[in-house]
Amino acid sequence: MQPRMTRAGLAPTHPVVAIDETGRPREVRIAGESPLTLKVDGHEVVTLMTLGTHPEALALGYLRNQRLIDELASIATVEVDWERETVQVSTFSGTGIADWQEKLRHRTVTTGCAQGTVFSCTLDKLYDVRLPQVEVRQSAVYALLAAIARHNEIYRQAGAVHGCALCRVAGGEPEILHFVEDVGRHNAADAIAGLMWLEDEPGDDKVFYTTGRLTSEIVMKTATMGIPVLLSRSGITHMGLELARDLGVTLIARAKGRHFLVYNGAENLVFDATPDPRRLQAAP
Amino acid sequence: MQPRMTRAGLAPTHPVVAIDETGRPREVRIAGESPLTLKVDGHEVVTLMTLGTHPEALALGYLRNQRLIDELASIATVEVDWERETVQVSTFSGTGIADWQEKLRHRTVTTGCAQGTVFSCTLDKLYDVRLPQVEVRQSAVYALLAAIARHNEIYRQAGAVHGCALCRVAGGEPEILHFVEDVGRHNAADAIAGLMWLEDEPGDDKVFYTTGRLTSEIVMKTATMGIPVLLSRSGITHMGLELARDLGVTLIARAKGRHFLVYNGAENLVFDATPDPRRLQAAP
Repeated sequence: MQPRMTRAGLAPTHPVVAIDETGRPREVRIAGESPLTLKVDGHEVVTLMTLGTHPEALALGYLRNQRLIDELASIATVEVDWERETVQVSTFSGTGIADWQEKLRHRTVTTGCAQGTVFSCTLDKLYDVRLPQVEVRQSAVYALLAAIARHNEIYRQAGAVHGCALCRVAGGEPEILHFVEDVGRHNAADAIAGLMWLEDEPGDDKVFYTTGRLTSEIVMKTATMGIPVLLSRSGITHMGLELARDLGVTLIARAKGRHFLVYNGAENLVFDATPDPRRLQAAP
Repeated sequence: MQPRMTRAGLAPTHPVVAIDETGRPREVRIAGESPLTLKVDGHEVVTLMTLGTHPEALALGYLRNQRLIDELASIATVEVDWERETVQVSTFSGTGIADWQEKLRHRTVTTGCAQGTVFSCTLDKLYDVRLPQVEVRQSAVYALLAAIARHNEIYRQAGAVHGCALCRVAGGEPEILHFVEDVGRHNAADAIAGLMWLEDEPGDDKVFYTTGRLTSEIVMKTATMGIPVLLSRSGITHMGLELARDLGVTLIARAKGRHFLVYNGAENLVFDATPDPRRLQAAP
């Protein structure tokens, strides 16, 4: 059963006038950024700064990815009120928060954009995750990159956002199921986790794409969503790589045009569309 | 007087082998990312994920920018221990933490990369800041952008980092006083705040440059450092703009090559190097 939810997504961009390098005014669009305080059964959990396009999914995905709520079925309502800058989540038991005080005390502020907060319980539970080893065809990686390039609409309008995509690669044409942009890449990842929860969508046949860097926290979130493959336009950190090795996440990074580097899980890659090296420019 | 400090900066990058798009192994470098738990007089404040090149300055700048400690002179020692993943700050009074418990309770997780945490006391004190209105010559902006391009060494090696620079523009040639890269742009900003504190360097004749986006939090930090001009390669958010207007921060963003957009404080710009619009390509 789905929780009862508002549909309070905001328009992502605002028109403003800026002065360009020739001294002339230009109307341009900039990204929104709004505080949203998440409360569960009346108890404050965190304040997120968000673009605000998917506030209900963001709240759900945050609770899921931080492992603060394990079952969607335990959630009765998700109500966003932008006037009060809050999203109220109520559980059927109404007591979900009782054992969280301890969890909420130890927070790690991570390298992540936005929501760079890992509650210690997340780390404890993480090593329960067992990810399947999934074959990824190089041709599917290229098809995804081409499809994703058509999606990042807010970035093209306003910059200042990161995009994340949930992609299916197994069987047939690769497909982008969700594409979410937010001022923080972790918000975008969490909103996708919320959408997956609402649709009861498993992660094991998916690829998670992000425009952002592959730090430890994004690897953690991908594993929490049960997704075995992480694809990024940006680079990786050493701790992101170590976690990916421990958890069995295939890491494909610096993916732009025909170039990419596989930092972990290269044995899962099927090189079925290898470019002719003589025709490739040097990787950036 | 300066605090007694360790000098425990880490090497920023690690060599790893990745498989490229032709299926061949390549030795590449990736950015480090290490947890560092900040304790003051034995009390845990936060765990930061950092590249680790400037851990002492990072700890100091974090305390300064979060307005948790007001005077450098109250700090006796700053000791980094990577084995224990801690940086211990001790104050002369030894009781600095007493009134902080309340401050530490309300945290906002922001859009910032890393350290996206604003304690409510920061916001309360922020509106005390009065920034001078400083003239910025367009020729100085171009000179700074050219100088900065020579600095971001770790980004060129490994990606996955943001860079921040403290620049002097008043009088003579523009000069880069500090350039710090970190896996989170807020770490880089805080490390610079720490270095400014150690050198008793005022902010009012400076420009702060960042590769990252101008969100509310980076505008806040710049104002806290007393710096009236913020320059970025990336875009801005609406809340960043509103804060800049309230606090009087000149915002120059999307600055690449000859292009830039002034979102706030255009009256402080001196257009002394305006490119011929017929020779400019369309802004990206």
